[in-house]
Amino acid sequence: MMRALDLAEAVEAGDLTPATVLELALEAIGEREKDIRAFASLDTDRARLAARTIPGTDGLFGLPVGFKDIIDTADYPTEHGSPIYKGHKPISDAPIVRMTEAAQGLRFGKTATTEFAFLNPAPTFNPHNPAHTPGGSSAGSAAGVAAGFFPLAFGTQTGGSVIRPASFCGVAAMKPSFRLIPIQGVKPFAPLLDTVGLFGARVVDVAFGLAAITGRDLRVDGGDFGKPVFGITRQPFAGEGSLEANAALEQAIKALEKAGITCREVTLAPVFGEAHAHHRAINNHEGAVSLTWEYDVHCERLSPILRDCIEHGRSVSLAEYDAARAVSNKARKATHPLFEEVDVLLTFSAPGLAPLRDSTGDATYNKLITLLGLPAVNVPGWRDSATNLPMGVQVVGAFGDDQRTLAAAHLLEQALAAHA
Amino acid sequence: MMRALDLAEAVEAGDLTPATVLELALEAIGEREKDIRAFASLDTDRARLAARTIPGTDGLFGLPVGFKDIIDTADYPTEHGSPIYKGHKPISDAPIVRMTEAAQGLRFGKTATTEFAFLNPAPTFNPHNPAHTPGGSSAGSAAGVAAGFFPLAFGTQTGGSVIRPASFCGVAAMKPSFRLIPIQGVKPFAPLLDTVGLFGARVVDVAFGLAAITGRDLRVDGGDFGKPVFGITRQPFAGEGSLEANAALEQAIKALEKAGITCREVTLAPVFGEAHAHHRAINNHEGAVSLTWEYDVHCERLSPILRDCIEHGRSVSLAEYDAARAVSNKARKATHPLFEEVDVLLTFSAPGLAPLRDSTGDATYNKLITLLGLPAVNVPGWRDSATNLPMGVQVVGAFGDDQRTLAAAHLLEQALAAHA
Repeated sequence: MMRALDLAEAVEAGDLTPATVLELALEAIGEREKDIRAFASLDTDRARLAARTIPGTDGLFGLPVGFKDIIDTADYPTEHGSPIYKGHKPISDAPIVRMTEAAQGLRFGKTATTEFAFLNPAPTFNPHNPAHTPGGSSAGSAAGVAAGFFPLAFGTQTGGSVIRPASFCGVAAMKPSFRLIPIQGVKPFAPLLDTVGLFGARVVDVAFGLAAITGRDLRVDGGDFGKPVFGITRQPFAGEGSLEANAALEQAIKALEKAGITCREVTLAPVFGEAHAHHRAINNHEGAVSLTWEYDVHCERLSPILRDCIEHGRSVSLAEYDAARAVSNKARKATHPLFEEVDVLLTFSAPGLAPLRDSTGDATYNKLITLLGLPAVNVPGWRDSATNLPMGVQVVGAFGDDQRTLAAAHLLEQALAAHA
Repeated sequence: MMRALDLAEAVEAGDLTPATVLELALEAIGEREKDIRAFASLDTDRARLAARTIPGTDGLFGLPVGFKDIIDTADYPTEHGSPIYKGHKPISDAPIVRMTEAAQGLRFGKTATTEFAFLNPAPTFNPHNPAHTPGGSSAGSAAGVAAGFFPLAFGTQTGGSVIRPASFCGVAAMKPSFRLIPIQGVKPFAPLLDTVGLFGARVVDVAFGLAAITGRDLRVDGGDFGKPVFGITRQPFAGEGSLEANAALEQAIKALEKAGITCREVTLAPVFGEAHAHHRAINNHEGAVSLTWEYDVHCERLSPILRDCIEHGRSVSLAEYDAARAVSNKARKATHPLFEEVDVLLTFSAPGLAPLRDSTGDATYNKLITLLGLPAVNVPGWRDSATNLPMGVQVVGAFGDDQRTLAAAHLLEQALAAHA
């Protein structure tokens, strides 16, 4: 994998240039993209031209960054993973694209997404085992980081579309606090839930990238962020985790404890289980609204699974939708006492290993966190020897506490490297 | 003016048809549009064709509805009031456009907007006095209802862009609770503030239109909604209201008292003044982010006033922006005890009469309400004899209490008709 922080330091030191970093990426792409299909579109000539003009003196130091193909770009097509938008060229760039360039990031193509970031699989293969899904909806961003095609890539999460593919592909990723990253110019699905996130090789890389792009204090390399108390939850209302998910979680707990970090089982208040159950009403109702034109005009070009979602969404009563929002608000308030008890939560990233490619996996352990708007980080570190598939765990923090969440995830990453 | 509720009842009774209603609108447009310029685009042939195919049996009964030109339409251009988007045709319709059609509303062209719904004036004239502004940013929607061009039109409010032009043009309008009307497909300015609203001749017309389009219980004709207690505030932190604004407010209070409704002065907690002062940081910071591409690529095609806004927005520190959001959250919580004390607030809609056409007026009495996400209705009813310009007052309710807010505004409307 391409490690953003190390590459940036090498460019800063003069050992690499934006152009030579790009060639490393293009080499990996030349070898494996035909088998992985992480990109929805990529113009290598344009990327080479850009790499020659980026100064590489600050910020992202010219590193290539992938953008999920529901993020508007004025040059590359933005197809939302749907034949309805085949060849569609937005007039303008989403703010996050230009913010990345303002931070000396190299706009490096569009990454494959499931249809409108919902459940119909993208054409992408899991880099660790081609029979398995890379997850969704941010399939290409996760797989591309895992395959060393780019050090950083943006995705979005409405259910579990950042944390789940990161777990399945064995990369780090963060879904920050709701609206930490601007959402303008990103195709909406459920505006109450839609959150932009970033993938990278390690937690420190993701933190470095987010800090450079947003201008916020988010880096966690170097500094001392103290010893957070981890609260362990298996989110029992979300179903049973697999043997592999439990093994990854137990490995993480053991590594933390060996590193002298306190882990403590926490019991989530009943309102969190209620909120988890209400995610679907909000997701499907708002998704049905967002895709009104697509359903009305191009119904036959939607996948059956998305049609079902929209039709369910249209059947959600306004009373049910309003009740779901009210429960969410109650649950958001209930996070305050929870994060007085512990600093961060440690939970499953996904129910198990990446399933076969006819599915993108299950977001059951991500939905509640998305609904609450809390920052969440996938920390990779466990691997199934039979399938070669990785399995991550999820670190979750209080709303707005993004740097501490990253720092705790980085501690776990270090503990796993030392003690796993 | 075209009264939506009366016209719908006439269509239902068979006295009018969608086509004959449309001809009434086209007649008014033929007479006055060249002097008012409410439309950004209108295809009368297409409208006539649509009017012949709408059944006119339910919902909006085929009434023509205008859409502010920052709302995406796949047929009409969507130019955002900016030369940068001259002739721009989005690929799809915003959900609200199709929801209106699903409710048997007739898509009736695009209404003039200020540049990106900010402060640079639209080409529209005030129907009551052509030397004066219709207000902004929803200039064409307000002026077009006032001129009888359509019975209903959508606008949006980020500062005071629905309530202010309604006051200046002497029409009713509602900015509902934040996100009551879907925002997808509407050009973002400040996502934390941007709210879609509806204009109509009277409060009952706006309520009828909102109910038909959203499917929510919002109508206030007919039913008995009790006698709300009105809390009077002049929002002293927002500056001094003019003589005319005070006259309109006092007329409203007197009419309510004559109708046996309790009016009581309320003192707003200091946090509301703080929140009012923080609107600008959120508005300009988020506006600068939303218009990143426009500023980066087409800076010279932006008006000086918008450029200044974006440049100020770029200078707002993240700490300042975060602090503004924190104060807003505190102020939102403080609305709960306020609306235990009174049912609705009554306040200025604008600081005074519509100014001359080189400005769109001042949103000082609307900013706080927008930031709090509260439902607000402009009730017209006062007129300045020297200039022939109208002046409205603003009724504000608790979050989510949209029907009660409309009902209170309707009571005031009736009281003004009886006692003013």
